[in-house]
Order: sequence, then C-alpha cells, then structure tokens
Amino acid sequence: MSSFDVMTTTDGRVLRGEQTRRAILHRAGELASVEGLDNLSIGRLATDLGVSKSGVFAHFGSKEELQLATIGSARDVFVEHVVTPAFRERGLARLWAICENRLDYVQARVFPGGCFFYAVAHEYGGRPGRVRDRIAAEETAWLELLQRTIESARAAGELEPGVDPVQLAFELDAYVGATHTAVMLHDDSTAYDRARTAMRERLRRVAVRPELLESA
Amino acid sequence: MSSFDVMTTTDGRVLRGEQTRRAILHRAGELASVEGLDNLSIGRLATDLGVSKSGVFAHFGSKEELQLATIGSARDVFVEHVVTPAFRERGLARLWAICENRLDYVQARVFPGGCFFYAVAHEYGGRPGRVRDRIAAEETAWLELLQRTIESARAAGELEPGVDPVQLAFELDAYVGATHTAVMLHDDSTAYDRARTAMRERLRRVAVRPELLESA
Repeated sequence: MSSFDVMTTTDGRVLRGEQTRRAILHRAGELASVEGLDNLSIGRLATDLGVSKSGVFAHFGSKEELQLATIGSARDVFVEHVVTPAFRERGLARLWAICENRLDYVQARVFPGGCFFYAVAHEYGGRPGRVRDRIAAEETAWLELLQRTIESARAAGELEPGVDPVQLAFELDAYVGATHTAVMLHDDSTAYDRARTAMRERLRRVAVRPELLESA
Repeated sequence: MSSFDVMTTTDGRVLRGEQTRRAILHRAGELASVEGLDNLSIGRLATDLGVSKSGVFAHFGSKEELQLATIGSARDVFVEHVVTPAFRERGLARLWAICENRLDYVQARVFPGGCFFYAVAHEYGGRPGRVRDRIAAEETAWLELLQRTIESARAAGELEPGVDPVQLAFELDAYVGATHTAVMLHDDSTAYDRARTAMRERLRRVAVRPELLESA
C-alpha cells in the first residue's frame, strides 16, 4: 500500500492507508444502503471524502472490488453492533440479545438506508455474479449464527427440546425484514414495536422459563 | 383511443386498443418484477411485443404513466389470484385462504421475479414521488384488507377476542416477505414450507377451533 500510505485531503487532513480505506468503506456503506451498490462510484466517493479519485482507485482497483469490500465492511459493522455485545450473554439471554440488538441497529439507522443487507439483497437478488454470491454468503452466515444460538439455548435446557432451529430462525428473521418494508415505504416506525412484540411472544412460547423475557 | 384503436403487429396479429394495452401492461409487469420499474422502457416493450414504439407511447404518454399503469395492472393480477377466490369463503376459512393463495401466487411465479410488489417496494422505498406513493398505497390497501379479514373472523367468533388485527397482519405478512429474500438470494424453495408452517401455527394459536386448520 506504499503509493497511498499517506494522503492529504482537500481540507488539509492527513489520512494514512488503513484510515483512508476505512473512511472510503464507511462512506460507501452509507451511500449503498440508500442508493444501491450498483450506483457506487469511485468519483463520487472521492468528491464526498475530499480525496483524489486515483487514491480511491488505488485501494480497490475496480468497482466490483469496491462493492465486495463495502459488503465486508458492512458485515463488520453488523457484527460489532449486533453479535459481539450479545456474546457476553449465554443461552436464551444471548438469543434475545441478538434479536433486540438487531432491531435496535436497524431502528438506529446505523446505515442511513436502514438495514444495509436487506437493501443490497433486494438489489442483487436477481443478478448472478460475485457481488450476489457474497451477499448470499453473508445472509447464510447470519441465519446459521441465529440457528446455532437457538441450538445452544436448547442444549442449555432454556428452550423446549422440540424447537426447530431452522423454523424459529426463519420466523425471528422475518419480523425484522418486515420492518424494513414498513419503514422504507411508510415511515411507519411502529413496525419496530410490532417486530419486538412478535419476537418476544414467539420466544415466550418455546422458553422453558418465559419469565426471563418479561423484563424485555 | 381512436388513433391506436387497431394495431397490426410485426407478425401480423391485429390488436384492438384494450387488448394492446393489456398486452403491454402484462409484459411490463413481467419485466419490472425482474429488472425493476425504473428499467422499463417503451422501446423495449415495443420490441418485445412486436408493435410500434409510437403505439406504446400513445397508450401511456410518459414513462411515469406507464409505471403507474403497470402497478395498477399488477394489483389486478394479485386480486384475481389471491383475494377473489378467498372471498368465496368466510371467517377464518377466508383468512387462511388469503394467506395460502398469496404464498401459492408468489411460489408459482405468476410474475417471474416473484412478488411484484416486494420487488418494486424495495426499488422505490427511498425514492419520493408518484410511483413510490402508488406502491405505498397498494401496500397499505393489502395490509388493511388482511386486518379487516382478521376482524371479520374475530367478529364471527372464530378467532380469540383478544387478537390484535394489526399485530397479526404484520406477522402473517412478514413470513411471506421472508420467502422473497430466501428465494431471490438462495433459490431456497423450502422457505415456502417454512412460511406455510409459520402462518398455520400462528393462526392455530388464536383460532377458537384450531382443528379447522388441520387439513391445511
């Protein structure tokens, strides 16, 4: 990364290589969540960040590499907000924390377009290629994480033994997805409360000690 | 409509005004469900249907009018497949028929891109204007229909009196939405079975006679 190790912005700030890369990907994630990954442009990013176009280009080499890196960066943000804090808990408490953190993260508009992954999944769902494959892989990783968390809570005796982790993960995930549509189309923020209610009631039905979800 | 009342296609078929209009909107709905409403082009439609560009233009006058008419036409298709057959039933049977018909209609790919409305809602969610307003109005009309159907089943004594129609409609709708993502990203058609299971179990919990949903 020697050629772009240090870069001076138009407003005089000095950015080092990794810092520049992070700043580019942060802005790229914001833009893509609203306007789509396909509309990402190296020129637009350079203008927004006040750096040279060749500096941005040097970091990624192509628009596709920039798109893939943006997805990886958005995944890191998701893990930081949703997964890492929940992993301080165990069993049912961890499962509930993951569900709540995810809803909070969508509601807080960490990405201005809401959930980065819903936005780009719909954009690229029907378009074969590396970008779609990467989005699908991240989506699979998320659902598998949710399923494993359910299995752990069941193994710890905190969920009924008959719980189907794949079915339960599908349903918990569906409620959050529905908020995305409600908020994007109708600015209907009551959808977050509906999703929270749906997740809590769904978990109470299969929790061995439903009272653990009372405070929620 | 006098100037385009009768039109001869490049392969010699003769189309009358309403027939042409329907053929255009049918093809426009197919294309938009896969490629988006924004990518609709009067030239592309004329080529696909073997009619003149000016003939297509005469029907709609502008791309925006074509988009709005395509949404109206997709709504008619939805009503024909999902709503009309269900309205032969009453109470809980009607509610269950609406849920099943909707899932069948998405699964059958009546529109090649899956659910026309999910596809365009995600495309236009963040883009203010008449097209978004029309999509939002159709989405609202659908949710209100679902809520009224729940209220009727409750008033008929077939659902528990404590059922919240808005909450229940949100959840039933969410399951179908989640199939869209699963199928578009992963070609995972088991999602339809998961959505069917989720809808049936959700209704069984609030049905006064859950056995009515057994055969389902």
